[in-house]
Amino acid sequence: MRIARFSLDGTVGFGVLEGDANTEGGPVLDIIKGHPFAEFERSGQKIPLDKVRLLSPTLPSKVVAIGRNYAEHARELGQEVPDTPVAFFKPSTSVAGPGDPVGYPAFSSEVHHEAELAVVIGRMCSQVPRERVHEVVLGYTCANDLTARDIQRSEAQWARAKGFDGSCPLGPWVETEVDPSDLAVMCTVNGEQRQLGRTSEMIRSVEDLIVHITEAMTLLPGDVVLTGTPAGVGPVNVGDEVAVTIEGIGTLTNKVVKRG
Amino acid sequence: MRIARFSLDGTVGFGVLEGDANTEGGPVLDIIKGHPFAEFERSGQKIPLDKVRLLSPTLPSKVVAIGRNYAEHARELGQEVPDTPVAFFKPSTSVAGPGDPVGYPAFSSEVHHEAELAVVIGRMCSQVPRERVHEVVLGYTCANDLTARDIQRSEAQWARAKGFDGSCPLGPWVETEVDPSDLAVMCTVNGEQRQLGRTSEMIRSVEDLIVHITEAMTLLPGDVVLTGTPAGVGPVNVGDEVAVTIEGIGTLTNKVVKRG
Repeated sequence: MRIARFSLDGTVGFGVLEGDANTEGGPVLDIIKGHPFAEFERSGQKIPLDKVRLLSPTLPSKVVAIGRNYAEHARELGQEVPDTPVAFFKPSTSVAGPGDPVGYPAFSSEVHHEAELAVVIGRMCSQVPRERVHEVVLGYTCANDLTARDIQRSEAQWARAKGFDGSCPLGPWVETEVDPSDLAVMCTVNGEQRQLGRTSEMIRSVEDLIVHITEAMTLLPGDVVLTGTPAGVGPVNVGDEVAVTIEGIGTLTNKVVKRG
Repeated sequence: MRIARFSLDGTVGFGVLEGDANTEGGPVLDIIKGHPFAEFERSGQKIPLDKVRLLSPTLPSKVVAIGRNYAEHARELGQEVPDTPVAFFKPSTSVAGPGDPVGYPAFSSEVHHEAELAVVIGRMCSQVPRERVHEVVLGYTCANDLTARDIQRSEAQWARAKGFDGSCPLGPWVETEVDPSDLAVMCTVNGEQRQLGRTSEMIRSVEDLIVHITEAMTLLPGDVVLTGTPAGVGPVNVGDEVAVTIEGIGTLTNKVVKRG
């Protein structure tokens, strides 16, 4: 099931995606009664997908991200694969939705794309044992862990380099049924392929990461765990269209704009 | 003015503190109508302070903290004073209130206290120029930036070391009128003094830090900026009572307990 959050005529709601580009009349959203993080049902009231504006499918209280989880990417940055996962935060103010313009931050001159599989948490949880991780995951979406690489090099902690406004586009929806263990993760800039990897190359699995994070902290419904990026990161510039595609989930597209 | 958040008989509210221990009948809270981050007035309805449970005076969407902002503390950890402030996040799930027990995290065996002046943001703001910082600050409170020092040493980013549940006690209230530029900051453990410094020793001022942070990201009403800790950090153990006192503000006390 694919659950999208949308706005239409000033109202915000969730809907379940039905059909695709090949469906007669195009894909629609079946509006949800209730909330996807609790009990809900489909209302049967359907809206064409092309009539709505898609929003970030979740409003996380926090995003917990993982650095250097693909060996090839660690190598391209000239770094070693760490003994333990490198966990850092992106704040709620960094989240953007599919199609949202992302402002190029004035304090950086080297912003990089990082395509990543994002895990959307469905239940409040802490100290989750490995065998129960599947119970706390609602589903998966695409993320772009935008990074001010120059700032990341000069500041020991990454709050500014990876926490600036708009640095965490998420979307286009939450896919609740995909198996995350071997999916293609791709990033294109203006249609040209930059990153291509598979989640099977991740050093630590989704289970590993959620065990590691919840050993220390509680995750809340809607919180997001980013799982690291494959090799091929590189700069984006004002005017670029950046697209993150994950097999079985969809494509998240954002345009980089001059910050107002 | 001192603004406290409290619960009483299952209701949560804000109140303005009047009087102190020397006042006949003891200090009271004058209950606020409205919200302290917007327009409000005092209702005139007063409750004795000793009848309520004080809560964290703010529920931040994020806490942005600064490392190594006192030269003496950087030296005691064997580190250099950084060229730019070291900014990191503590998530909303790390916040605890005055008097709340803090569970000793199972994944660490070396948790340290770090007494800090906390800035409480009053208005949504980004790219704040230095001369307008005073407009975005609601006031100040005490914080304990509890740190799993062993984890901090072994993990390059500090999300787990400084982001575990309960690692950010805040309180006892927001003082809106104090000048933050030269206040004594003290930490005691079981009544014994461990840290004592003055905010005048801070390498970067409150203005510097808010300019630096908002260059990258938006701060929301209720968000908190921690300003670094003076020298004297050290371990806390289960059963310890840790108290952070800041001149002109008050005392934040928390007991360390075995995590359930």
